[in-house]
Amino acid sequence: MSALKKALFVSVLFVFVSAASAAELKPVKYVFLFIGDGMSIPQRMMAEEYLKKTQNTGLRINAMPQQAITTTYAANSFITDSAASGTAIACGAKTNNGAVGVNEKGERLESIAEVAHKSGKKVGIISTVTLNHATPASFYAHRANRGQSYDIGLDLVASGFEYFGGGGINGHKGSKNKEGVEQEDIFDLAKKAGYTVCRTQEKIKALKRGTDKVVAIGSETDLPYAIDASEDGLKLADFTKQAIELLDNPKGFFMMVEGGKIDWMCHANDAATTLSEIIDFDNAVKKAFDFAEKHPSETLIVVTGDHETGGLTLGFAGTGYASFIELLGSQKASLDVLKKTFADYAKKNPEASFDTMKALITEKSGLIFAADGKGKNGTMILTAAEQEELATKYGDKKYDELSNAVIRFVNHKSGLAWTSNAHTALPVNTTAWGPGADAFFGMIDNTDIAKKLKQTVIQPQRQRRVFRR
Amino acid sequence: MSALKKALFVSVLFVFVSAASAAELKPVKYVFLFIGDGMSIPQRMMAEEYLKKTQNTGLRINAMPQQAITTTYAANSFITDSAASGTAIACGAKTNNGAVGVNEKGERLESIAEVAHKSGKKVGIISTVTLNHATPASFYAHRANRGQSYDIGLDLVASGFEYFGGGGINGHKGSKNKEGVEQEDIFDLAKKAGYTVCRTQEKIKALKRGTDKVVAIGSETDLPYAIDASEDGLKLADFTKQAIELLDNPKGFFMMVEGGKIDWMCHANDAATTLSEIIDFDNAVKKAFDFAEKHPSETLIVVTGDHETGGLTLGFAGTGYASFIELLGSQKASLDVLKKTFADYAKKNPEASFDTMKALITEKSGLIFAADGKGKNGTMILTAAEQEELATKYGDKKYDELSNAVIRFVNHKSGLAWTSNAHTALPVNTTAWGPGADAFFGMIDNTDIAKKLKQTVIQPQRQRRVFRR
Repeated sequence: MSALKKALFVSVLFVFVSAASAAELKPVKYVFLFIGDGMSIPQRMMAEEYLKKTQNTGLRINAMPQQAITTTYAANSFITDSAASGTAIACGAKTNNGAVGVNEKGERLESIAEVAHKSGKKVGIISTVTLNHATPASFYAHRANRGQSYDIGLDLVASGFEYFGGGGINGHKGSKNKEGVEQEDIFDLAKKAGYTVCRTQEKIKALKRGTDKVVAIGSETDLPYAIDASEDGLKLADFTKQAIELLDNPKGFFMMVEGGKIDWMCHANDAATTLSEIIDFDNAVKKAFDFAEKHPSETLIVVTGDHETGGLTLGFAGTGYASFIELLGSQKASLDVLKKTFADYAKKNPEASFDTMKALITEKSGLIFAADGKGKNGTMILTAAEQEELATKYGDKKYDELSNAVIRFVNHKSGLAWTSNAHTALPVNTTAWGPGADAFFGMIDNTDIAKKLKQTVIQPQRQRRVFRR
Repeated sequence: MSALKKALFVSVLFVFVSAASAAELKPVKYVFLFIGDGMSIPQRMMAEEYLKKTQNTGLRINAMPQQAITTTYAANSFITDSAASGTAIACGAKTNNGAVGVNEKGERLESIAEVAHKSGKKVGIISTVTLNHATPASFYAHRANRGQSYDIGLDLVASGFEYFGGGGINGHKGSKNKEGVEQEDIFDLAKKAGYTVCRTQEKIKALKRGTDKVVAIGSETDLPYAIDASEDGLKLADFTKQAIELLDNPKGFFMMVEGGKIDWMCHANDAATTLSEIIDFDNAVKKAFDFAEKHPSETLIVVTGDHETGGLTLGFAGTGYASFIELLGSQKASLDVLKKTFADYAKKNPEASFDTMKALITEKSGLIFAADGKGKNGTMILTAAEQEELATKYGDKKYDELSNAVIRFVNHKSGLAWTSNAHTALPVNTTAWGPGADAFFGMIDNTDIAKKLKQTVIQPQRQRRVFRR
């Protein structure tokens, strides 16, 4: 065959293949958006290294084929808060820190969840923190201030979205309004609006397929940290799995799932609890992949963070070029639980001294007290100077400060450091898998996420690759 | 037209377009690889924000259409040094920290520069630091230890590459070998091997097109920091431009250009000098883009870093959610020059006290001494406590420590912080433009850079997009 004939043959074949696939072009049916609050590249890579060293594996979210470095700044600040970044990711527009679902002028924006809902898809909103917290709220609420918890609760009920699950609804009881009239409880309003409201984990677990509109409150506040949680308590992955089952329908769904407490422990500079939250978040993403395995040409999965928190760095002056991230596994409780444990111990043992608490510190944190303070780099053995510091500075029942110091030593022994208790402006990483995923490349802005997702939900997508990894 | 007829028409058109472009497929003719030593995402985004705030623009390297987050770990360490990462980027294989152009077993690896040279392209190696430093050496040398400066110099001469430019050659004079025989000067060996060796900037500037093999030593050590450099001194961009002119030929070229001192000031935690080095590096990349504008379908430009240095974070506990990166512009000298300036001043003024030095501190750093230490957040006004610290801790002629403290205050006033004087394991960002650029996407490893570049140099490339941005 001549080159031209061959090309013509291939070409004609191409016509029929094209015609066939053209007929199948349609908007993406199932769209998952996962947001790790406070999760930027250092957080993801800390967990990657931990899993590599301890389990010879990595995060599912880091093995997605497409990724884009994503800037996060707010309209009025290089460093964003979760409201401005949530709004950018949800609605595709910059706004000021504090604003939810409205732009700098206070004008209402439309979220990807609302666009999806209008197009006939069912919508789920899931978070480990309260469902009217800034990030989830950005997908259904339109308020000038993230602090308007009750008003955001009203927007939740008004959204008509089919599934809300995870933490509670902050300020649901309301208060007296200006005219002295008592506000109605958000949960009651939700019931009136046709929602099945479950406020115990038993009731959530008992929910049947076919239940139409659900508010599934796994905790009246936020879900426990994964590092502290009981085996059988509902996790982010359980809510994700349940939402998939309840929302699946011929028109498809859009689902936003937030790992909301990654951020909290980055604020507290607790690396081990942050790590455990990220793995818990990754487990939720795996539920989406389980589903996507069955619907590979119809499912788009996007994973991002809303900003970096804490100024986490994968290195520390005291450890130089060495790194021992695997040691984070020795810590057995979050900073919050550590504080409570120490205080409880002191309450039960009025004669407690720093010396009698050493065993408890070791049990919970993995830090080891050796008589001479000697141990090689890369162990959790406290030096004599560090033991002295703990005993003299915090031994006198300053248990909150003691807990903070313990966590700081765990970080440093692992070769990690933090620079802030606030957010930082480091870009995040957005990863994507499935039809429409290859729109996520290069350096993008967080507003691009909503823009690209709105396209995949509305416009026909060509699946350029079958993503299997 | 029916859909089928239309498709057939488009298809036949496609045949001719395909046939036409198939004929043009060939290896990429001109390949640029830029490496910012110690330059990861925080460094790039610090400069981006500075340029945005002060000049309403951004870095050229951040506006490239393709990018890939790139892991940097060494074979034996989560935190890499410049030798292991240079070798990974140049040769496509992991090795231990310290090794140059050989794997963990000491076996010789082949670099992209060597592959390009074998294929008939001319090769240029440029750096702001010495030409036998770890990063440039990784492209032509094969030694177990980066400290073997003289041996690496021998490899430089043996490479036969057509252009070496920038800093000097460390240890070029050699020493007596085991048998007591004096080693020959690397520069003499280079001349014998046919190189035109220029050891003054005047001679470099006078080089004529057509000069075949060049060693252009802009400084016997390293080039000055951009923040300290004289107007007419040769910069990284000048060497890049000269190399383009000297290397351009019908078979094309491969060029590696390193901003080697970004790393140095990250080690020293001097953000303003780091910033200035990155802008200087970006200016060199712009020379490649000037060239690419004339050869858009034949030029691939790739920009990466070899690792993060210093644990730079775009936020700081003391400034919380606020950020004042534009203030970095007030600093007028590198930490090195600051130290020298203070010491020189003290030498010339034996009666110098801290009080008499305040004006000099302000002139060089931008830090302002106000009597009451009052100034709003986001100014460089030292608080009363900070002034006290400087005066009492370092006032007593400890000028090195004084300089370090001054730089630390400049960082903090700008809303930046560092956690280490070593490297960290944060991935870097690799950006790319031109034919072959779209191989750079997703999350990659630094070894992938060499692998992908070797393909573009050897194998025919389809230009999938015309990159114009």
